[in-house]
Amino acid sequence: MPHKISTTISPEGSLEVLSQHEVNRLRDTSSSGLHDLLRRCALAVLNCDTATDDSVALMEAYHDFDIEVLQQDRGIRLKLSNAPAEAFVDGKMIRGIREHLSAVLRDIVYVYNEIQQHPRFDLSSSEDTSNAVFHILRNAGTLKSSCEPSLVVCWGGHSISREEYDYTKDVGYHLGLRELDICTGCGPGAMKGPMKGANVAHAKQRRKLGRYLGISEPGIIAAESPNPIVNELVIMPDIEKRLEAFVRVGHGIIVFPGGVGTAEEILYLLGLLLHPDNAKMPFPVILTGPRSAAEYFERIDEFLAYTLGDQARKRYRIMIDDPIGVARAMREGIDEVTEFRRAHDDAFYYNWRLSIQPDFQQPFEPTHEAMAALALHHDQPIHELAANLRRAFSGIVAGNVKEPGIRAIEAHGPFRLHAEPELMSRLDELLSSFVAQGRMKLPGSDYVPCYTLG
Amino acid sequence: MPHKISTTISPEGSLEVLSQHEVNRLRDTSSSGLHDLLRRCALAVLNCDTATDDSVALMEAYHDFDIEVLQQDRGIRLKLSNAPAEAFVDGKMIRGIREHLSAVLRDIVYVYNEIQQHPRFDLSSSEDTSNAVFHILRNAGTLKSSCEPSLVVCWGGHSISREEYDYTKDVGYHLGLRELDICTGCGPGAMKGPMKGANVAHAKQRRKLGRYLGISEPGIIAAESPNPIVNELVIMPDIEKRLEAFVRVGHGIIVFPGGVGTAEEILYLLGLLLHPDNAKMPFPVILTGPRSAAEYFERIDEFLAYTLGDQARKRYRIMIDDPIGVARAMREGIDEVTEFRRAHDDAFYYNWRLSIQPDFQQPFEPTHEAMAALALHHDQPIHELAANLRRAFSGIVAGNVKEPGIRAIEAHGPFRLHAEPELMSRLDELLSSFVAQGRMKLPGSDYVPCYTLG
Amino acid sequence: MPHKISTTISPEGSLEVLSQHEVNRLRDTSSSGLHDLLRRCALAVLNCDTATDDSVALMEAYHDFDIEVLQQDRGIRLKLSNAPAEAFVDGKMIRGIREHLSAVLRDIVYVYNEIQQHPRFDLSSSEDTSNAVFHILRNAGTLKSSCEPSLVVCWGGHSISREEYDYTKDVGYHLGLRELDICTGCGPGAMKGPMKGANVAHAKQRRKLGRYLGISEPGIIAAESPNPIVNELVIMPDIEKRLEAFVRVGHGIIVFPGGVGTAEEILYLLGLLLHPDNAKMPFPVILTGPRSAAEYFERIDEFLAYTLGDQARKRYRIMIDDPIGVARAMREGIDEVTEFRRAHDDAFYYNWRLSIQPDFQQPFEPTHEAMAALALHHDQPIHELAANLRRAFSGIVAGNVKEPGIRAIEAHGPFRLHAEPELMSRLDELLSSFVAQGRMKLPGSDYVPCYTLG
Amino acid sequence: MPHKISTTISPEGSLEVLSQHEVNRLRDTSSSGLHDLLRRCALAVLNCDTATDDSVALMEAYHDFDIEVLQQDRGIRLKLSNAPAEAFVDGKMIRGIREHLSAVLRDIVYVYNEIQQHPRFDLSSSEDTSNAVFHILRNAGTLKSSCEPSLVVCWGGHSISREEYDYTKDVGYHLGLRELDICTGCGPGAMKGPMKGANVAHAKQRRKLGRYLGISEPGIIAAESPNPIVNELVIMPDIEKRLEAFVRVGHGIIVFPGGVGTAEEILYLLGLLLHPDNAKMPFPVILTGPRSAAEYFERIDEFLAYTLGDQARKRYRIMIDDPIGVARAMREGIDEVTEFRRAHDDAFYYNWRLSIQPDFQQPFEPTHEAMAALALHHDQPIHELAANLRRAFSGIVAGNVKEPGIRAIEAHGPFRLHAEPELMSRLDELLSSFVAQGRMKLPGSDYVPCYTLG
Repeated sequence: MPHKISTTISPEGSLEVLSQHEVNRLRDTSSSGLHDLLRRCALAVLNCDTATDDSVALMEAYHDFDIEVLQQDRGIRLKLSNAPAEAFVDGKMIRGIREHLSAVLRDIVYVYNEIQQHPRFDLSSSEDTSNAVFHILRNAGTLKSSCEPSLVVCWGGHSISREEYDYTKDVGYHLGLRELDICTGCGPGAMKGPMKGANVAHAKQRRKLGRYLGISEPGIIAAESPNPIVNELVIMPDIEKRLEAFVRVGHGIIVFPGGVGTAEEILYLLGLLLHPDNAKMPFPVILTGPRSAAEYFERIDEFLAYTLGDQARKRYRIMIDDPIGVARAMREGIDEVTEFRRAHDDAFYYNWRLSIQPDFQQPFEPTHEAMAALALHHDQPIHELAANLRRAFSGIVAGNVKEPGIRAIEAHGPFRLHAEPELMSRLDELLSSFVAQGRMKLPGSDYVPCYTLG
Repeated sequence: MPHKISTTISPEGSLEVLSQHEVNRLRDTSSSGLHDLLRRCALAVLNCDTATDDSVALMEAYHDFDIEVLQQDRGIRLKLSNAPAEAFVDGKMIRGIREHLSAVLRDIVYVYNEIQQHPRFDLSSSEDTSNAVFHILRNAGTLKSSCEPSLVVCWGGHSISREEYDYTKDVGYHLGLRELDICTGCGPGAMKGPMKGANVAHAKQRRKLGRYLGISEPGIIAAESPNPIVNELVIMPDIEKRLEAFVRVGHGIIVFPGGVGTAEEILYLLGLLLHPDNAKMPFPVILTGPRSAAEYFERIDEFLAYTLGDQARKRYRIMIDDPIGVARAMREGIDEVTEFRRAHDDAFYYNWRLSIQPDFQQPFEPTHEAMAALALHHDQPIHELAANLRRAFSGIVAGNVKEPGIRAIEAHGPFRLHAEPELMSRLDELLSSFVAQGRMKLPGSDYVPCYTLG
Repeated sequence: MPHKISTTISPEGSLEVLSQHEVNRLRDTSSSGLHDLLRRCALAVLNCDTATDDSVALMEAYHDFDIEVLQQDRGIRLKLSNAPAEAFVDGKMIRGIREHLSAVLRDIVYVYNEIQQHPRFDLSSSEDTSNAVFHILRNAGTLKSSCEPSLVVCWGGHSISREEYDYTKDVGYHLGLRELDICTGCGPGAMKGPMKGANVAHAKQRRKLGRYLGISEPGIIAAESPNPIVNELVIMPDIEKRLEAFVRVGHGIIVFPGGVGTAEEILYLLGLLLHPDNAKMPFPVILTGPRSAAEYFERIDEFLAYTLGDQARKRYRIMIDDPIGVARAMREGIDEVTEFRRAHDDAFYYNWRLSIQPDFQQPFEPTHEAMAALALHHDQPIHELAANLRRAFSGIVAGNVKEPGIRAIEAHGPFRLHAEPELMSRLDELLSSFVAQGRMKLPGSDYVPCYTLG
Repeated sequence: MPHKISTTISPEGSLEVLSQHEVNRLRDTSSSGLHDLLRRCALAVLNCDTATDDSVALMEAYHDFDIEVLQQDRGIRLKLSNAPAEAFVDGKMIRGIREHLSAVLRDIVYVYNEIQQHPRFDLSSSEDTSNAVFHILRNAGTLKSSCEPSLVVCWGGHSISREEYDYTKDVGYHLGLRELDICTGCGPGAMKGPMKGANVAHAKQRRKLGRYLGISEPGIIAAESPNPIVNELVIMPDIEKRLEAFVRVGHGIIVFPGGVGTAEEILYLLGLLLHPDNAKMPFPVILTGPRSAAEYFERIDEFLAYTLGDQARKRYRIMIDDPIGVARAMREGIDEVTEFRRAHDDAFYYNWRLSIQPDFQQPFEPTHEAMAALALHHDQPIHELAANLRRAFSGIVAGNVKEPGIRAIEAHGPFRLHAEPELMSRLDELLSSFVAQGRMKLPGSDYVPCYTLG
């Protein structure tokens, strides 16, 4: 049985000066539909040091965990019951985790009150969605007008080998030596390695304000708890807004080996970059891993060429076993981005100019029906196929590690995906290789596929 | 003819990171009803170094002044046409004025979009009004959770003698030596003196973060332009919210000699403090001036005793010609406030506990009808009489220095006030003494009363 | 009888971390020859708010004042007996004065131990003297490698009219608006006005790190106590090193109306600038005052033309009644200095390149003999005449306001100066005009000349 | 052949504002006896990423490395020839290394000019020596008056197993979580692990000003290059002053497994703590390592008990395989130190109260004669035996890794040590166990003992 602690703490930062309206609203979350959301996200950030991606198991181990907002005249206090003891040092919560807890509360309340309940945002409109993403990020303090471009988004699997993990650290180290910062989706593996590496390099370069930005969403956070090194945490309301946040705040993207989640991200990114509106925009994308990962990237490369065509290959470089080369290429790529933004008087902190089609913005709910209905064939524009493939992979991630997905699979069996024959076999091959390479779940658990093809 | 400059500038601070929604909204003010409001307030802050309280004359001298919001990808720019040259040094706008200009824009846009147009605030409700005042102040960065109580609100006339002005400087100096900060309504005279004095004292005490908070409102700002020493400026939407801001953020109040505006403020303050809910709350109030102002305060004191009763006298002290004594008493009073807040776990930055009756919160529009209808007699609870007297004085201020008031008097002749006989004669006496002492307008202009009693 | 306070305080800043050697040395000053020096300088900085330039009267009023260094394991404490009460607010010393007290202690100890007693410095050598001045200034934290040139040295009388004082404030204000900082010799009059003006302007321009540098020396400090606005105070060991400090750290010089002290400074400055080594070095010098001071500058101008020749006039401009013009010209002049330094890779914080002849560096002791022996005639190189005239004026300043000078005059009667006839009469005229204009002493005291010419 | 770079860089920090005297002195080092010292230390800090402790091999690999001080009007520049390429990222020196290079220059120049050549310090006196250590540390900016005690000195071998290294990281991590800082002797192994661990923990606790203090000396720096994480580096002039610096600035000491260097440090420390003057002073000392190191500490424990007696055991605790327990105990121990210092008004930043006998301060030159003459028997006071054993171990360290020691052994064969029989056999046992455990040199090199016993 896990060791648990019950205590009361003060929140940090933006939650310090609240109006009575806001205090009431926070307190009322206890009895509203937000309470469960808050409870799950809070548990995830408190659980940061345990190696599990099984959100159902986590919820069960801490079934008696609770969080309550207490009103006080001078502000609010958070009452925690049966919280994971790892979040505390000699009874005092680690400051980084306290910040994450406040970030969770901040974002849930903001999204609910200022975005979803606000007449200003029509979230079925593309423009309003981009504005909503901007407002959430700004409210989280993520948009800094005085910073030069430096944010490298690192994607990749949470379940990778020690060798691959060390490689991501090494790349992060060389990025950090070049005064670059790291943004990931939080969690272990390829999301933690680059930050640890960059943290050492920033210490050597005396970069005191190094940024370690984590962007999560309620569905994934339990499986990919933010590491406390993350010094800016944002909880976006859904997968699609999280992806939009990545590509609008990041100045370049590195993809490490991963599984379906990584494939989802690659398809999202290329779907955007292949749109004619974005043809002239510089955006460095590098796929990289140690020597042993070479085959992995070859497979991905072939799959992308088959599905999105050869022009897709022009938007990324594959570099094997070359951390210094990757870091240099990224530094150069970001210098180009800087020049481009300056030339166009574009903001450094948010890429307004990037065109994102509604297909990539509308939340996709991976029910058995929706998954079965996905149009997976070449008889549609490239970017629509990319969007549908992205949805297919997204559904599989849900079935693998997200609580509602896992429960749906338990109830109704695996998702059924339909595709045109050649695509079907390519997809089968790719997914099977992920399973074979153990990229579907953290080591130690057997993988039972949550999908069937046919 | 005044010297004028046309140029384009970048705004400061909170306007640096804007969403496209917000940029559009700012730009659209040009064609909306807010444009005239923005134009008048902007002109007022640009005109800070000229000694005039005649807002009509100011608008006429700069009839061709205009301000326009330009959109740029990386943010906004403000285009100014025919602006007062005094706001510039060798072609570059003084930084303090640039900040004020941004504050004007910030507050007008915020109030319009987030308060007045927002379903969250029912401004006919007392609770919602206090929350609205809080939100405006917080958005302006005025509520600092880490500061100990130190804010002395200084009220008093904008048209005072050199001797009185020097006295306000002297008091400000001794407040500043005691690590106290200054909040005023902006403008010249008693609103400027304490800040200048405190600024010197803060330099001597190496108080680098000394606060000079100015709280204005659109109707008064043209007559009482903020001095650039003001390093935090807030434009509240109306008189009543401005008064509420003063008493909720201030930790103590000093009243210097003044005219009807000052009388309005005193009546507002005592009306609140005499309410039973506030009976036990410490709140230091000191009426002070040089030897020559002794008689002035005697008159006020008598009038207050007659209208509000003897218990009113317990909530203030009159101290004549004693800047050090005033500063010491205020320091002690604020130390008591600090203790009280700490004991009750109250916030230092906003006095939620102070009860303000709806009578004092509802905006009063001083039309000829409304002024004539005011119930000025003892046949009502004390706090209601205080509220009505406050309104009467408020109307006279409007007729003296505010643009719509001046124009209404030009069109329809003086306001008519009705009161019970004894009160009428007391009021007559008080107002006549203000006229006789030149406290109605800045020197150099003849005063023609904007009211008749009868 | 003045109000006095006895107390114990902690020093500030550089005196916080001391070795036991240093603590012993500080404590031993009590019994050494430095004690009297320390006592006199400490009294001067504590006496900052009293309007007197009579150092003898000051020492007598506070004959029982004393300062003692107490050793404590964690550092030192200063024990003050019978100190002027004006230095305290409610029993606590004003922080600016506390800093000045620490600066006095710091500089006295440093000069004695590290300069005068140190084999490294041969103070009869010109090069070593310049290095010593550098070391004293650096030890005081005055040499900041990251600042752009901005330091305007303001010279002028401590005994000037209200009109002239207001003018110096006005010039300081317009310098401050142009992001320039002020350096003076401390004391009232033209040494205080520019700082007060700049302080207001810096507040308006939000220049938080505005510099108000005071450079004094033990002989003059009692007559010209540093105003607490001075946020960097340095006590140079003698007049000549103080003058060298002015011209090596300042980037431009403004001369306001003054008396013999001012004349001394002008002759020193022109003596340097007329040396061929300095011919090409930009160094803006402006003589300025209100309309009423026009005649004063005409006299000076004529005297300089007569003594130093017409080429002297090329190194200064006289600007009457034009604060904005003066500020603009100084800004431009300093921009030129910046360019010059940059082009020559010269430091911004110390003008090593300026050549200063030994004549201007060797301390001059104004005994009756030395004064009588001064060679005041044209039969010598221009810069030697300038040096001798400088010495003559320096002696008169000593006789007017410095304690040993005053006592010497009391004992032996006025100094006798000898000069060639025409020079004698010019000198007589100039000095008489100073007396007539009340520029020799602060108002309220009759002036009895401390010199005779013949 | 190593990759090399030649370039010119600006120094950092305290070397920015230099007098011409100082610039000359720095430049003159090129031709003086200091040049070789500077060259060797500079090479050591530039070589930080290479795993070698063989200073002779290092000097040979970079025989053509050189450093020169160039004078420029605005300061100095350092010209490097054939420097290790690892110190640079894309041609720009890593900032941490640049700081180290400046620290080397700063300390060498300061020690030579202000300590060794200064009449103030009689280095044969105990008091003067402690003052000299203080001055060197203060000049390096190491003595911070505002910091609470937090500095844990970590000693231990540079040549340790991966398991032991990971253990030191883990301990550092748990110290860092408890807001403690790390001080070591620089170099790899037990000197690097705790810093890396603490760096991660400080990131999690948002401790932005975490301190990683490295204290080296010219003889050891080549074998134990400072890791760039070290953000404060001091080069003490000799072993004995380095040891004094450790015990006067540190607030507690942790000893990890090591070899003779570690034994030297333990004997030094216990020699001090066993002196009656220090009997009442709290000073937490913990010997710790993973399970596999248990035997190592048993041997040390027995040797100490035999040589120094049972009372020695009261001044340290041995804790095996318990990183959290060690961190907690150290936190508590340092809290006691804090209380003790506060109670005695002692400085936090330098332990003046600790008594250090001259025996432990006088530099020991390990010639063959001096080593042979060491009195290693019980027929002397305990602290003298401790001092002599310390010298014996110090000599062996020199023979193992220091350039002059290695060369002396090459020339004259191993040192001969003489001891009383029982002590001899104990010593033999201890040293043999170090050899057997590979603790004498970094792995990969065979160890040939530099001593014989008999």
